[in-house]
Amino acid sequence: MSEGRRIDAARLLKGPMGPALRALAEGRVTATALTEAALDRARTVGARLNAVMTLDETHARAAAAENDALPPDQRGALHGLPLAHKDIFHRAGRRTTLGSRARDAFVPARSSVLIERLEAAGSVTLGGLHTAEFAMGPTGHNEHYGRCRNPWNPDLITGGSSSGSGAAVAARLVFAALGSDTGGSVRLPAAICGVTGLKPTQGRLDTAGMMGLSASLDCPGILARGAEDVARVMDVVDTHPPPGGFRAALDHGEARLSGLTLGLPDRYYLADLDPEVAARFSEAIRVFEGLGARVIAVVVPDHESLADLADLTWTPEAAAQHLPGLRAYPEQYGRQVRARLLQGLVTPAVFHLQARKLRAHYLRAMVEGPLSACNALVTPALAITTPTAAEMDVGAGAAMRETLARITRQTRPLSYLGLPGVVTPMGRSSNGGPTALQIIGRPFDEAALLRVSHAFETRTRWLNEAPPMAM
Amino acid sequence: MSEGRRIDAARLLKGPMGPALRALAEGRVTATALTEAALDRARTVGARLNAVMTLDETHARAAAAENDALPPDQRGALHGLPLAHKDIFHRAGRRTTLGSRARDAFVPARSSVLIERLEAAGSVTLGGLHTAEFAMGPTGHNEHYGRCRNPWNPDLITGGSSSGSGAAVAARLVFAALGSDTGGSVRLPAAICGVTGLKPTQGRLDTAGMMGLSASLDCPGILARGAEDVARVMDVVDTHPPPGGFRAALDHGEARLSGLTLGLPDRYYLADLDPEVAARFSEAIRVFEGLGARVIAVVVPDHESLADLADLTWTPEAAAQHLPGLRAYPEQYGRQVRARLLQGLVTPAVFHLQARKLRAHYLRAMVEGPLSACNALVTPALAITTPTAAEMDVGAGAAMRETLARITRQTRPLSYLGLPGVVTPMGRSSNGGPTALQIIGRPFDEAALLRVSHAFETRTRWLNEAPPMAM
Repeated sequence: MSEGRRIDAARLLKGPMGPALRALAEGRVTATALTEAALDRARTVGARLNAVMTLDETHARAAAAENDALPPDQRGALHGLPLAHKDIFHRAGRRTTLGSRARDAFVPARSSVLIERLEAAGSVTLGGLHTAEFAMGPTGHNEHYGRCRNPWNPDLITGGSSSGSGAAVAARLVFAALGSDTGGSVRLPAAICGVTGLKPTQGRLDTAGMMGLSASLDCPGILARGAEDVARVMDVVDTHPPPGGFRAALDHGEARLSGLTLGLPDRYYLADLDPEVAARFSEAIRVFEGLGARVIAVVVPDHESLADLADLTWTPEAAAQHLPGLRAYPEQYGRQVRARLLQGLVTPAVFHLQARKLRAHYLRAMVEGPLSACNALVTPALAITTPTAAEMDVGAGAAMRETLARITRQTRPLSYLGLPGVVTPMGRSSNGGPTALQIIGRPFDEAALLRVSHAFETRTRWLNEAPPMAM
Repeated sequence: MSEGRRIDAARLLKGPMGPALRALAEGRVTATALTEAALDRARTVGARLNAVMTLDETHARAAAAENDALPPDQRGALHGLPLAHKDIFHRAGRRTTLGSRARDAFVPARSSVLIERLEAAGSVTLGGLHTAEFAMGPTGHNEHYGRCRNPWNPDLITGGSSSGSGAAVAARLVFAALGSDTGGSVRLPAAICGVTGLKPTQGRLDTAGMMGLSASLDCPGILARGAEDVARVMDVVDTHPPPGGFRAALDHGEARLSGLTLGLPDRYYLADLDPEVAARFSEAIRVFEGLGARVIAVVVPDHESLADLADLTWTPEAAAQHLPGLRAYPEQYGRQVRARLLQGLVTPAVFHLQARKLRAHYLRAMVEGPLSACNALVTPALAITTPTAAEMDVGAGAAMRETLARITRQTRPLSYLGLPGVVTPMGRSSNGGPTALQIIGRPFDEAALLRVSHAFETRTRWLNEAPPMAM
């Protein structure tokens, strides 16, 4: 390999993984240089966005140096890439706040399985990213740590609960970040911050060492600057990638989608769309048709009750998790989180069990119905344009439930059903915030979703636009 | 094989499976003759005991004739043996009452997986046996169908909820019967009626087509006249028997137990024993020592709270199962069953989830503690001598919970923990009713329990005694 001229690490950080990996492989940049550039951005841009919860500078520098010292043949697939993750993924020997005041001094003895795999593949973990308290909250607010800011427009919410993962990837602090998605918590911040986000099939990725919220619905996910980078991360964290790997599955010549059928849901997901969202979505459909996909209307089962069923599923599970804390130090919980946990405390077991049982019924209806008629469903990731933080600042009051439900309307059903979904940008609305597509797939068919997303991204180039605060 | 002289089918029915299988193999008796003898006993002795819920005479005769028509090399391991099962195991095209009035006309389209396997192995299913309503109740009472009677003394309870399985096997109506055990429902009627009963490890046997009560605790089990016959049935119904099969695992020369260590729990299971039970148990321990087993005291974790945790686990699950019925036709439920289901209706999900979570904690304490110090624990199957039906006739009143708890004190913890247990007779008490041992094992080590039971049975010969009503 020829040693080309050295390249500016800060500039590499602003692109996707590919050029950085090539520069690292060719010796034109070091893991240390990339890490220093990323730490620098985290301290400046990251602080302005309030995207970073804990920065492990010493650990990151040591990891970068260790990676630089490796002979080329021992370098992993993510060698030298700075990453950071939602601050609910345990990082051995490093403080992991869980977004909470109650457990803000928690220093896990072992890292989460996914972070172990990412670090073994050569990535450098900078620290923990902003998250809603105990991953509960879809807006990016946190009563203890303040809200995370959207790099496209600081007045807008980031979405949550993987708020810092969305903001940090969008603002080019890191190449990718882990998030977790129990009702939309990966897809919402990815959509609202304008990056690509994957919530895999529930159960696909290992949850060991990820803070538990709801055993039935918790799902780790990945945010990155494009489906190709998501695929690179999946190839490292997934134990059973498709033959050849996720990234290889993206490669269909000119990324065209001929032979694929995309379904437009006949109800729920395309109802009551904001006109700007509807306009962007129509343009996106035309892009898909231009890529050779067949777009058809499909009948979806009524999903109006799924948000309630999701609530009946996760709130008692979260309340059971937090029962000792609610007994011992209730005052250390934020008001909104406490209010939502109390809802779980008074849920009868019978309702929880019924909600879990109905899940199989609705999932089957989706798999045997619309998902058997097409390769993926496409919907907007949110029915509304991105609200401002002030609009969403509802605390624990009467408007809370309805406001949160409005944000999660498009994402919640997939969490309940356990289906995989990818979100990716489809342009911006007049308030400067991104709008996004949601691509919904069959169980364990993440490869198809990433292929669809990749083709769309390559054609539209929305991901090449950087938000003002990333400059 | 030589055709010996023909043998009296009714007499064969009174012994264990071995002689009957030999007579069948040698052509000295036919499946039809055995079936007719069994049907005859079911109509007479079975009716007096109220042990039979539904008798499928036409079906049984056809199955016997089919078996008789098979060439010898196509005959199954249970060829020609009349069996009958707790009336909650679905029998295709045959009425399965579930012990209920609410669903007493239920005719399943498919048989339960275990009955399918038993019939494929050549056994002849006579019908459905007495059970508590919806398998809820440990005494043998049923508000709709009357109580099942104990063949040793009709004033005594049979135990339940697999009441008919216990009575029918003890009274020599059938060679073996399936039961189900959610809190002791196989072990109690086996113990109280004086036969051998196995509750395998929770999850070991397929529950498809068995009426569900509690997905977390439901466990099919087997009642038969000795561990050897239980092993024969296990070899048919289990999908992963030990190498060589369960029956082969019993064979240790003269059935001695040298090399095995049996543990006596230092608390809970040996506390507050009725003096007659304590005396029989001491004799049983001496028998084990005579068989070469090492008997040691072992420390068991405190199990006083396990009955409550079991209640928090199964009652909401049962209530969720019955929610539609409780809404649509509450008056068709018996008073006691309705009262117990209502308890489940008002259980918070948080308690149910906590109870399920603690299960892992207690199970681990048992497996790493006493069950690592010995091959099996031995305890009495009941701490009391068999009560009369009048004493147990508590309906849905204030005494219900305590009375039911007294009966299930020794069996309930194993159901909660999911551990396997075998009960087998250890003599009789002054009221004429059998007393029984409970042998508790490591998860999936049913073979060891059957070996211990078999050695004990061979030495003591309690199983050779037939109850007065079996004559």
